[in-house]
Amino acid sequence: MLLVQGGTVVTAEDTRRADVLCDDSGRIAAVGPALEVPTGCMVVDAGGLLVMPGGIDPHTHMEMPFMGSVASDDFQTGTEAGVAGGTTTIIDFVIPERGGSLLGAWKDWRAKAEKAVADYSFHVAVTHWDEQVHADMGTLVRECGVNSFKHFMAYKGALMVDDGVLLRSIGRALELGALCNVHAENGDAVAFLQQDLLRRGLTGPAGHPLSRPPSVEGEAAQRVIAIAGLLGAPVYIVHVSTEEATAAIAAARARGQRVYGEVLAQHLVIDDSVYADPDWLGAARHVMSPPFRPKHHQKALWAGLASGQLQTTATDHCCFCAGQKEQGRDDFTKIPNGTPGIEDRMSVLWHHGVRTGRLTPQEFVAVTSANTAKIFNIHPRKGAIVPGADADLVLWDAEASRTVSAATHHQNVDYNLYEGMSLTGLARHTISAGRVVWSDGDLRTVRGAGRYVERPCFGPEMAAQIRRNETVGTGAVNGLAS
Amino acid sequence: MLLVQGGTVVTAEDTRRADVLCDDSGRIAAVGPALEVPTGCMVVDAGGLLVMPGGIDPHTHMEMPFMGSVASDDFQTGTEAGVAGGTTTIIDFVIPERGGSLLGAWKDWRAKAEKAVADYSFHVAVTHWDEQVHADMGTLVRECGVNSFKHFMAYKGALMVDDGVLLRSIGRALELGALCNVHAENGDAVAFLQQDLLRRGLTGPAGHPLSRPPSVEGEAAQRVIAIAGLLGAPVYIVHVSTEEATAAIAAARARGQRVYGEVLAQHLVIDDSVYADPDWLGAARHVMSPPFRPKHHQKALWAGLASGQLQTTATDHCCFCAGQKEQGRDDFTKIPNGTPGIEDRMSVLWHHGVRTGRLTPQEFVAVTSANTAKIFNIHPRKGAIVPGADADLVLWDAEASRTVSAATHHQNVDYNLYEGMSLTGLARHTISAGRVVWSDGDLRTVRGAGRYVERPCFGPEMAAQIRRNETVGTGAVNGLAS
Amino acid sequence: MLLVQGGTVVTAEDTRRADVLCDDSGRIAAVGPALEVPTGCMVVDAGGLLVMPGGIDPHTHMEMPFMGSVASDDFQTGTEAGVAGGTTTIIDFVIPERGGSLLGAWKDWRAKAEKAVADYSFHVAVTHWDEQVHADMGTLVRECGVNSFKHFMAYKGALMVDDGVLLRSIGRALELGALCNVHAENGDAVAFLQQDLLRRGLTGPAGHPLSRPPSVEGEAAQRVIAIAGLLGAPVYIVHVSTEEATAAIAAARARGQRVYGEVLAQHLVIDDSVYADPDWLGAARHVMSPPFRPKHHQKALWAGLASGQLQTTATDHCCFCAGQKEQGRDDFTKIPNGTPGIEDRMSVLWHHGVRTGRLTPQEFVAVTSANTAKIFNIHPRKGAIVPGADADLVLWDAEASRTVSAATHHQNVDYNLYEGMSLTGLARHTISAGRVVWSDGDLRTVRGAGRYVERPCFGPEMAAQIRRNETVGTGAVNGLAS
Amino acid sequence: MLLVQGGTVVTAEDTRRADVLCDDSGRIAAVGPALEVPTGCMVVDAGGLLVMPGGIDPHTHMEMPFMGSVASDDFQTGTEAGVAGGTTTIIDFVIPERGGSLLGAWKDWRAKAEKAVADYSFHVAVTHWDEQVHADMGTLVRECGVNSFKHFMAYKGALMVDDGVLLRSIGRALELGALCNVHAENGDAVAFLQQDLLRRGLTGPAGHPLSRPPSVEGEAAQRVIAIAGLLGAPVYIVHVSTEEATAAIAAARARGQRVYGEVLAQHLVIDDSVYADPDWLGAARHVMSPPFRPKHHQKALWAGLASGQLQTTATDHCCFCAGQKEQGRDDFTKIPNGTPGIEDRMSVLWHHGVRTGRLTPQEFVAVTSANTAKIFNIHPRKGAIVPGADADLVLWDAEASRTVSAATHHQNVDYNLYEGMSLTGLARHTISAGRVVWSDGDLRTVRGAGRYVERPCFGPEMAAQIRRNETVGTGAVNGLAS
Repeated sequence: MLLVQGGTVVTAEDTRRADVLCDDSGRIAAVGPALEVPTGCMVVDAGGLLVMPGGIDPHTHMEMPFMGSVASDDFQTGTEAGVAGGTTTIIDFVIPERGGSLLGAWKDWRAKAEKAVADYSFHVAVTHWDEQVHADMGTLVRECGVNSFKHFMAYKGALMVDDGVLLRSIGRALELGALCNVHAENGDAVAFLQQDLLRRGLTGPAGHPLSRPPSVEGEAAQRVIAIAGLLGAPVYIVHVSTEEATAAIAAARARGQRVYGEVLAQHLVIDDSVYADPDWLGAARHVMSPPFRPKHHQKALWAGLASGQLQTTATDHCCFCAGQKEQGRDDFTKIPNGTPGIEDRMSVLWHHGVRTGRLTPQEFVAVTSANTAKIFNIHPRKGAIVPGADADLVLWDAEASRTVSAATHHQNVDYNLYEGMSLTGLARHTISAGRVVWSDGDLRTVRGAGRYVERPCFGPEMAAQIRRNETVGTGAVNGLAS
Repeated sequence: MLLVQGGTVVTAEDTRRADVLCDDSGRIAAVGPALEVPTGCMVVDAGGLLVMPGGIDPHTHMEMPFMGSVASDDFQTGTEAGVAGGTTTIIDFVIPERGGSLLGAWKDWRAKAEKAVADYSFHVAVTHWDEQVHADMGTLVRECGVNSFKHFMAYKGALMVDDGVLLRSIGRALELGALCNVHAENGDAVAFLQQDLLRRGLTGPAGHPLSRPPSVEGEAAQRVIAIAGLLGAPVYIVHVSTEEATAAIAAARARGQRVYGEVLAQHLVIDDSVYADPDWLGAARHVMSPPFRPKHHQKALWAGLASGQLQTTATDHCCFCAGQKEQGRDDFTKIPNGTPGIEDRMSVLWHHGVRTGRLTPQEFVAVTSANTAKIFNIHPRKGAIVPGADADLVLWDAEASRTVSAATHHQNVDYNLYEGMSLTGLARHTISAGRVVWSDGDLRTVRGAGRYVERPCFGPEMAAQIRRNETVGTGAVNGLAS
Repeated sequence: MLLVQGGTVVTAEDTRRADVLCDDSGRIAAVGPALEVPTGCMVVDAGGLLVMPGGIDPHTHMEMPFMGSVASDDFQTGTEAGVAGGTTTIIDFVIPERGGSLLGAWKDWRAKAEKAVADYSFHVAVTHWDEQVHADMGTLVRECGVNSFKHFMAYKGALMVDDGVLLRSIGRALELGALCNVHAENGDAVAFLQQDLLRRGLTGPAGHPLSRPPSVEGEAAQRVIAIAGLLGAPVYIVHVSTEEATAAIAAARARGQRVYGEVLAQHLVIDDSVYADPDWLGAARHVMSPPFRPKHHQKALWAGLASGQLQTTATDHCCFCAGQKEQGRDDFTKIPNGTPGIEDRMSVLWHHGVRTGRLTPQEFVAVTSANTAKIFNIHPRKGAIVPGADADLVLWDAEASRTVSAATHHQNVDYNLYEGMSLTGLARHTISAGRVVWSDGDLRTVRGAGRYVERPCFGPEMAAQIRRNETVGTGAVNGLAS
Repeated sequence: MLLVQGGTVVTAEDTRRADVLCDDSGRIAAVGPALEVPTGCMVVDAGGLLVMPGGIDPHTHMEMPFMGSVASDDFQTGTEAGVAGGTTTIIDFVIPERGGSLLGAWKDWRAKAEKAVADYSFHVAVTHWDEQVHADMGTLVRECGVNSFKHFMAYKGALMVDDGVLLRSIGRALELGALCNVHAENGDAVAFLQQDLLRRGLTGPAGHPLSRPPSVEGEAAQRVIAIAGLLGAPVYIVHVSTEEATAAIAAARARGQRVYGEVLAQHLVIDDSVYADPDWLGAARHVMSPPFRPKHHQKALWAGLASGQLQTTATDHCCFCAGQKEQGRDDFTKIPNGTPGIEDRMSVLWHHGVRTGRLTPQEFVAVTSANTAKIFNIHPRKGAIVPGADADLVLWDAEASRTVSAATHHQNVDYNLYEGMSLTGLARHTISAGRVVWSDGDLRTVRGAGRYVERPCFGPEMAAQIRRNETVGTGAVNGLAS
């Protein structure tokens, strides 16, 4: 047993002085002021610290094969970096080969993830459509604890699906009580612009943002929202990076659609000036999709989080080292897309969010863990500090500062996007399943200690939406599509 | 002590099976599955029921002197009607006479409220501006537990304040860490239209909505949001009834302003067709401000609640009997404005909100109690089911139905807006401060048992906003006013 | 020579008393008060009449092969119906077979149109993409007087093109100084919904609007606007029928994009209640795409025209008789899409637009002829009353009324959408190329008298846009895509 | 007689080669290619030049008493500067003293303006409300050729009127068939912010824009649009400088309201960085209201003009020399508000508008003269090149450049906002009432040659609006206020 003593518990709801007792099964046993110390119980002093639910990163790609490379952080190193930053759960993506089996891919990813040091779960990508996909979706939901499916509107010729597949897959997920995630960028447009830029000789990383301007994301967000609306289905848009997409989500919600938006910590604080870096590698290291944006988009993203129109923060953590980025030296379209970030998300959100008054501490918890747990229907097991919940906690030192550097980070990648940035607010201790796995800079993780988190279908908002459809007809014949 | 046993606890966060133990001080002592029954503890069987925080109605006017009359429900009868419907706390309005003392009025209202059977608190209205008002606001916040002030942009020549007063009062409240509430209708326009309608011979209740069309509310909402934005101050708009005002709030939030909107249960389900009632009294009984609206506005209000852009529900409970309404028989502008509603708010929200799939049960709790408690900084004392919170609970029968009627309601008024409406979902038992005050139709209240609820200033969102202002300058020089 | 004497000339600019002299080449020779009557000149008395530019219908389908049928009005009967209603020019659509030659199709249509009694021109549809299409577009623009190309985002498996083709074709048109037209409906969604409805047994015409709800049009409009914006190209959206598409156009224009919207007279006054007609044929006769919409959309369309955000009115005139509609008796997706309308457009616009105060007489001319002439770069040859312009005039009796009926109309089709509607405002005389072709109910047309109207490329707005692109970079790298 | 020979006539409609013959009464006698030269006719060679309607500046303040000073350009010098820049008509403002007679003030202004060298007209300001104002408005419209009234929502304690006066005055103007103009800034907010800034020691010109942030204009624009909508009245908003106000206008037009917006040339190209000028006078010279704005607002204004949502350009020409500006040396609120601009408006619009591709040449004419003439109902007498119109022309050299300087300008003020700016496009010759008044740098004006231009009431859009109100009821009971 473990007692977190003397801290200030902060949840998405409240802030109060309370101790937290964790039992031997890795769950929270009690929360309250001045709990008695059971015999033999280890005590962690949380004096002066905030005790918050461990972070959940709903968007990571550990050891993902992509664009001819494999992301350098594996499930062990990636989850280690997570706990070093206060993140105790990830939801990674199972991405079948084109035409490949969803179920088979899910099994492959389960195997790869066994070395994780903290809990993990999986979204499964739908990258084509046939009867087997339809069937596998059912199996995954009913037997494998999967309640979310991912779709790419970009990456033409590879992962991209067209609107017909989106309609089929979102419709299928709805009947299963599962939620669809979407990478919203118009892949046709990106491919066209890439070719146009290369033809004009723009082969460097500066071409990357030009090939995926904000309207390419805004358009796709609009489109998938319209599509989901036709079906009366909720939809979750990953890595919203523009005011256009934010506005599309807000407009849909104002019409009564249940649409969710996720923001990457990176997009909140880094802008597109990085692509002007004269150092090729410096710029190439920022190649990810969606790309970094002109600064004014950040204001919309922060406001979206504070107002509840965007609900979650993530990292799209997907690491490629210098040698990997080099494969696009002569053609930016071949630079593996992805950036690291899992280790610093919580600090970035605290420093730039809470300390600037953009977010309350409660909102910080909401957007770093609680909302994600709710949307993906693992709340209050995750994202909450209540008896019975998993004892995943971060003991946060709101006043301590650190300077970010690849030299000291735990991510298995040779750079850090925030290199040199001083951040106030850090994970003093991290507790996963009732065990201290990070303490004052000391990583105490156990390879394989992470558990696969099954996520049940038909979460509360999904259930309400289905009831709504029954009441007023499905989207195509109800007000959503009016 | 009191044990609520066998129920399903529903909060704004979660739904789970748990018992709730209330101690003798009227607080919740424990929440958990299968709690032990302490010796001598009364047990309430919550089997098959949902156990939710008692409703909070943030907008009532008990025994208010208004338009030459006095609202017929007093603090006793009004709070009794509340508990009969599952509402255990009200926030009423202290309304000084024009030029009168805020502090004096607050004392008057405290005295009037002593007969309340359930807890109550007060917003205090600012209806003019001078140094005394400035000073009284400080006293009320620092010594009297008031953290919110009310302003009327309507009722020209009576309660209305101009933009200069709004700026001064909102600015003063901001430095005190208090929140401003606003009745948003353009009073100049209403007065002009009233005179125009009367001049044209439109003296009946049908003139009422014509004198306050939706744009009159939308305009005022826009205006006060702009004013608050200049100051970097949060603002709370009462009884939002139009898509225009809802859109103004959403737009402000999307820019990063902290703006809140309250919806009356009445506006969610009753439309402006009521003013076409050939029976004068039938129409006059629906005279309230803002008036009932064309049906399409309801969709925006429901979506606003579900999406979190509108946060609270209230009733503006303000009862006038037939004889009182009669004083406007020849001139609709003299009909006392106000409708009853406190008793039925929770049922209306459940029946038309949850059962239709517009809201999840968690969202129901959020908009009937938890959000109000957070915004007015009495959470988790109110609006939550956690150890230490006030033991204000409603044991909700989600499947039972009742037919609303003035013949059976507990409101001290001779009609009910929902007369004849069948509602599924009702308060089986209501517990206030750990005591059963309503049980299966039996009212067990005690006159004067209600307590005055002090509300501290500088709530979390207010504190964040102040930090934000310090970071980027006040509204006038920061992005809010850009 | 022909002198129109004593009338009131109304143009998009002004209203004034003036005579109009037409010379023998079919052009206007002089405009002015009290013109002298040349010797031997025929005089038409325009006393009490408005003299306006003959209408231009930019969207017709005469004798078009479609869905296994051929539209029943051919170029003779269709243009005759036009002049009977005051329309003296049409722009019809050349629609190549899938994979077929654009140039070949253009020649076919030229041949078919030789029997026209009034002037005509052609948009040419791009329904696939290859090098030949690219080359043919150049030939058509440079040698054939074509300055506009049409694209279908709907009709999956038939005419529909994907976003990649749109990008290529719009980009190609831009370099040629030609304008792209788009039918904006998401074809994937329509196909999905059609199958879904049929599967559910909804085989009647009521399924038609359900298969193409407003959001399907709004989405596609958003999308093509985003695509055009990437290229820095203007774009013209045909038959805008929804507030969603209208809003998308207005938003784009507010960002500085040159986007145009066309409205069908039918959509302005007929709503979706027609599909509830228990008579199968009655409903089937209203099957066109986009379908008729809920009534509130009409307000947005009218306001769009009055505010200049929508610029033109058309009819999408495409007639199918009862026998043809019958082919979809058991499956609404097989009902040939199309409705008649060319004969009544001007009267519908006058009666419902000008007489209700929605439009000024000048705005009436703007939206029935002048704007179309400007956008398609044939102004002031068409759409104006100035010396040198084509002498295409309608002498309008603003006070006379008629009752519409298929029994008396000149369209070669067995029904009229406006059957029984009384319209005030009608063409008393119509003059085409200086000859009276319609006079007080008497059709005096000559088969083959109509001329093919060549339209030059690089119109003024196109030229400005190209200059803009040169100044700030193309769309992808300029503010349009920000 | 005067023949303008060999030029290219550009109007709001078209561009074509044509000569223009002016008769001795100062009107256009003929327009056409290769006109015969009448005997004794003076010929102006327009070879290589564009012949356009002379500019109309609808917003000037010549010799206006304001803030304790009098604007330094009088009606002679001001109109001279106008013709030097191609502007041949101004609409100035009659501004009665508070409580003073409208009619008396109008007579005073008539007297002051007798020295004008080019045509002029007057808007009359309503700065208070009583029966005399009501009566004078009638007299001015019916007997004095006034068809527009001005209102200030700013300048609290001086010119400002409240919403009640706005409602009365706009309503009165509507029944007279006259249009209301509004200066839209929230005067209460400005006064509050001014005091707040001064209290904080911000006494320099940098305080000026901080006291009138964009939202202060956006709010007022929203408000007056709502007010006009209640009445079913058109409204014209002067000097729109923000994207907020532009958006408010566009939104109103999209709802079907007839709302117009005017843009100052200055706001199109100068941003708020001018207030950071360390030279006090340099900054003070830019003090005008609304102030210069952050650069991103300019994009909205340009797009507003190109899309037709903003219709006119003006200058608010109101000159104060260094000594006058000095009176606010210690208190920015005492700096006389106003900047010069009449001489350079046309060049600024051409250089930054047409040459950059933002506007077509036709749109240039529309926004510099034709639209103004239409809105204020003096078209085609002004703003057009047709027989019968006033012979007010500018012969524009689209390729010639000049560098702006106070050293060479004709404005009677000691600085020029565009000092040092090189502008391509200039007035080679200006013709007023058929006489050459400016030729290649040579000013040939005659003191007093300018004529007062009477403007009739009930213009076409006003008439349509009144018909609309009759059809659907006035604003308060029709869709505008829904």
